[in-house]
Amino acid sequence: MDTDTNLITTDRVNGANVYGADREKIGHIDHLLIDKPSGNVAYAVMNYGGFLGMGAEEHPLPWKSLRYDRELDGYVTNLTNDQLTGAPERSEDWNRNRDYETRLHDHYGMPGYWA
Amino acid sequence: MDTDTNLITTDRVNGANVYGADREKIGHIDHLLIDKPSGNVAYAVMNYGGFLGMGAEEHPLPWKSLRYDRELDGYVTNLTNDQLTGAPERSEDWNRNRDYETRLHDHYGMPGYWA
Repeated sequence: MDTDTNLITTDRVNGANVYGADREKIGHIDHLLIDKPSGNVAYAVMNYGGFLGMGAEEHPLPWKSLRYDRELDGYVTNLTNDQLTGAPERSEDWNRNRDYETRLHDHYGMPGYWA
Repeated sequence: MDTDTNLITTDRVNGANVYGADREKIGHIDHLLIDKPSGNVAYAVMNYGGFLGMGAEEHPLPWKSLRYDRELDGYVTNLTNDQLTGAPERSEDWNRNRDYETRLHDHYGMPGYWA
């Protein structure tokens, strides 16, 4: 990825690795979700690939829980494994269910991107 | 595109049409550029397709100059044709040239995303 600029295309964010606070890889970003009204990035949807005993699946991480790390050339989350594995169950329509999104952000101890 | 949720994947933003304030189509979004330090979307790089007498080329629009319009199912910019066609000339390394970015935002009368 670009190392000499602060700007990165979304094509390159998609596919970037996600690391835990211990700098162990826990998955990769499948795609980003943008909040249309505000234009802010709301979630990085991470593909776990069967880590954490969860079976391969997609898992929405609040974008603000990720920080680009130049050395790792990927994103480090400040969420713990316990937080990630204990996240509220999602229904298929989670992305149009503000109640679920509120529970998710509460679980992660983060303000909602819509706040 | 999704009409029943506020969340949209970057895959669907890429390719979305861009309309002028008069709601005439002026191009489409080729890709987004994200500012790694802040995590904010910095630019939508628009492909003009030869409109505005400019020949087909890519043109960075400050993301904050675009607003999603549900009816058009695309993005409306508040920048005028004069502003767009009069934008400062870019060199190839524009995306790592904060001087250029500052001139561009000044031209558009917008604060920089890094501010």
